[in-house]
Amino acid sequence: MNLSQMTKEEISAFKSENEKLYSDFKGKGLCLNMARGNPCKEQLQLSVDMLRVFDNGDFMSECGADVRNYGVPDGIPEAKKLFSDMIGVNTDEIIIFGNSSLSAMFFAVQCAYNKGVLGSKPWSQCGRVKFLCPVPGYDRHFKVTLFFGIEMINIPMSPTGPDIYMIYELVKNDDSIKGIWCVPQYSNPDGICYSDDTVRRFAALKPAAEDFRIFWDNAYCIHHLTDEPKYVLNILDEAKKAGNEDIVYVFGSTSKITFPGAGVAVMGGSKKNIDELRQFLGISIISYDKMNQLRHVKFFGNFDNMLAHMKKHMAIIAPKFRLVIDKLDKEIAPLGIGSWTDPKGGYFISFNAPDGCAKRIVQLCSEAGVTLTGAGATFPYGKDPYDKNIRIAPTYPPIEDLEKAMELFTICVKIAAAEKLLAE
Amino acid sequence: MNLSQMTKEEISAFKSENEKLYSDFKGKGLCLNMARGNPCKEQLQLSVDMLRVFDNGDFMSECGADVRNYGVPDGIPEAKKLFSDMIGVNTDEIIIFGNSSLSAMFFAVQCAYNKGVLGSKPWSQCGRVKFLCPVPGYDRHFKVTLFFGIEMINIPMSPTGPDIYMIYELVKNDDSIKGIWCVPQYSNPDGICYSDDTVRRFAALKPAAEDFRIFWDNAYCIHHLTDEPKYVLNILDEAKKAGNEDIVYVFGSTSKITFPGAGVAVMGGSKKNIDELRQFLGISIISYDKMNQLRHVKFFGNFDNMLAHMKKHMAIIAPKFRLVIDKLDKEIAPLGIGSWTDPKGGYFISFNAPDGCAKRIVQLCSEAGVTLTGAGATFPYGKDPYDKNIRIAPTYPPIEDLEKAMELFTICVKIAAAEKLLAE
Repeated sequence: MNLSQMTKEEISAFKSENEKLYSDFKGKGLCLNMARGNPCKEQLQLSVDMLRVFDNGDFMSECGADVRNYGVPDGIPEAKKLFSDMIGVNTDEIIIFGNSSLSAMFFAVQCAYNKGVLGSKPWSQCGRVKFLCPVPGYDRHFKVTLFFGIEMINIPMSPTGPDIYMIYELVKNDDSIKGIWCVPQYSNPDGICYSDDTVRRFAALKPAAEDFRIFWDNAYCIHHLTDEPKYVLNILDEAKKAGNEDIVYVFGSTSKITFPGAGVAVMGGSKKNIDELRQFLGISIISYDKMNQLRHVKFFGNFDNMLAHMKKHMAIIAPKFRLVIDKLDKEIAPLGIGSWTDPKGGYFISFNAPDGCAKRIVQLCSEAGVTLTGAGATFPYGKDPYDKNIRIAPTYPPIEDLEKAMELFTICVKIAAAEKLLAE
Repeated sequence: MNLSQMTKEEISAFKSENEKLYSDFKGKGLCLNMARGNPCKEQLQLSVDMLRVFDNGDFMSECGADVRNYGVPDGIPEAKKLFSDMIGVNTDEIIIFGNSSLSAMFFAVQCAYNKGVLGSKPWSQCGRVKFLCPVPGYDRHFKVTLFFGIEMINIPMSPTGPDIYMIYELVKNDDSIKGIWCVPQYSNPDGICYSDDTVRRFAALKPAAEDFRIFWDNAYCIHHLTDEPKYVLNILDEAKKAGNEDIVYVFGSTSKITFPGAGVAVMGGSKKNIDELRQFLGISIISYDKMNQLRHVKFFGNFDNMLAHMKKHMAIIAPKFRLVIDKLDKEIAPLGIGSWTDPKGGYFISFNAPDGCAKRIVQLCSEAGVTLTGAGATFPYGKDPYDKNIRIAPTYPPIEDLEKAMELFTICVKIAAAEKLLAE
């Protein structure tokens, strides 16, 4: 029965019943973390053979460099080949970074802020500077723009991607809007894949600011949860067709393919963009870890093997996503006190509680030993205007723990929803 | 016989004779690079066992983190312990970075520039900002300050370190001077060790600008070329004694201990400084490569073993330094056409040609197949005011090649010096 159709008395009884279950849970001394999209042990284990690729003592890159030594600041050619296939650019349109695509994004914003973009005035000298932020989105993106004092504007998400008409309207006349954060494939946290139409409109975007850039964080480009995945259109290809190839920076990494702590991050874009950033890069580093680049190349061999490797990840984590969805379908759906996504890839399930309940749910879970991503984190400035979105990260806990955590979670949702209805 | 005491005719004959030798060299098709301080193959080989430390499948840090996963942004505790011994700070006064101390320095300048230092106004909002640059110095330091449009002021080096009296005079009233680049142990390129008096005066420095920082790049802190090394005084300890502990940022790395391309870089400083930078760091990275941190810890075990490891490096490279010095002693000293250092550690020999000859010497060498660091590179803006300093990096080439390269080098010095005397 839908909770909103119950009488106050029925809701009170429902609440008490769930509070009883909740207090039983508290006694269990749970300690589980579902805050971040961390791969689990079994996933980390999939790549340990990568650590043996140098057993034969061969450390030479095909470019003649010993990968143990200095040099080759923008990446060894064989890594450029492998990862340009992954993010869909040419080998002269890519820079290989260290282990963090967040660092690559920070680097790109930092360069624009301090040095400008292809000859434009540095953003630091532009007065007020703004970024568009599809919401809910990735908290770490928002923290980068916040660091530089860049103002953030919420853009609502739809099942086809961010509201592209709103974006067109906003950037058309306002040259203080300098960029947008996008996670096009399996968006964080909604798991939405941008439609072809959305990608084409992004690719053709002509903002008032010439130094506007789309930060296309393709973090989950091959992170599928089904056997027949839908690939998001290649934005750089589309931008080239539109004669607009400088509009986009593309990012990706192997953090959730090999090791989150020791993967390889990459950035792609038009040759013009990449040539400029490569120059700036040479100021702050002599070379990234080329041994790790070659490790990845030797381990995978080619992009097809990377795709095959991702199927092993899927086998481990798809059942965890299934468990969460099933639990929500069973416990929450009949009560009408929440909605959620059923993503076909990526790392998150996005849960929308009744308005005003997210913080309370996260607090209840936390007090019973289950840490969730902070409510509000998926919005700029940590402010969810409706206090309803919660990001669920199901990959890290063992499945038995996940089941317990989800049992607790649904109890907390029920209590918070009941509290809210009773207070109305 | 001293070249300047020869008659014009004698100098002409001397020049022709060396031009003949030079053209013989050109015919040999040499192709050697002495431009950068790169370790040689034998040195890289010293650390390959580090790649086997995970063979037992144990990836756990003592803090309970699986080093393969996300997290622990400022470094695992066992790495903090090992490397705080190396750079002489406490374990809560250190951040473990990725493979590049240059990146750590860039990061520190970037934070000061965009966010300020412990609450000061960001340098970007301070109008004209200046840095002091002991010369000759490290070209990559100068490029970082240049990137941010920071004006650079040359400070002459003496055998006890940079001219500390000049520094005191300059910083006393000018609050636009925000920092200084220092390589205190075996300075790049002069190989000078700062005296105790110099270190103590640095530690007690009270500049007009409260946000002034000494960038203490202790790149060669344990990179000795003798069995009885002299250690430079611990500046953070001295600064604490002077009640001035926020004055200095200390940097170091294992680039020339394990692998230049895959070492571990660190930064130390007062708790206050490090706490602030740790916060900023969390914006741009989730964690550096903790697998590589643990690799280093497992390989070395403790700091004493690192010191023992450095003796193996010494055994490989000390003879190369000897060869260069011997060659210069034999070929150049009697002619009075140059002076050079005889460093007790570090990676370079600093050669001073007669004024106005450095560019010509580098050009002559280059045309005969030996690449040296560009003349001028050891000065801010690439401008050696006397065009005389050349940095010689003897570590990389095999000793037979080094011998040939030095033969060519001395011939080029002779030709350039003769040309100059004849033109006077």
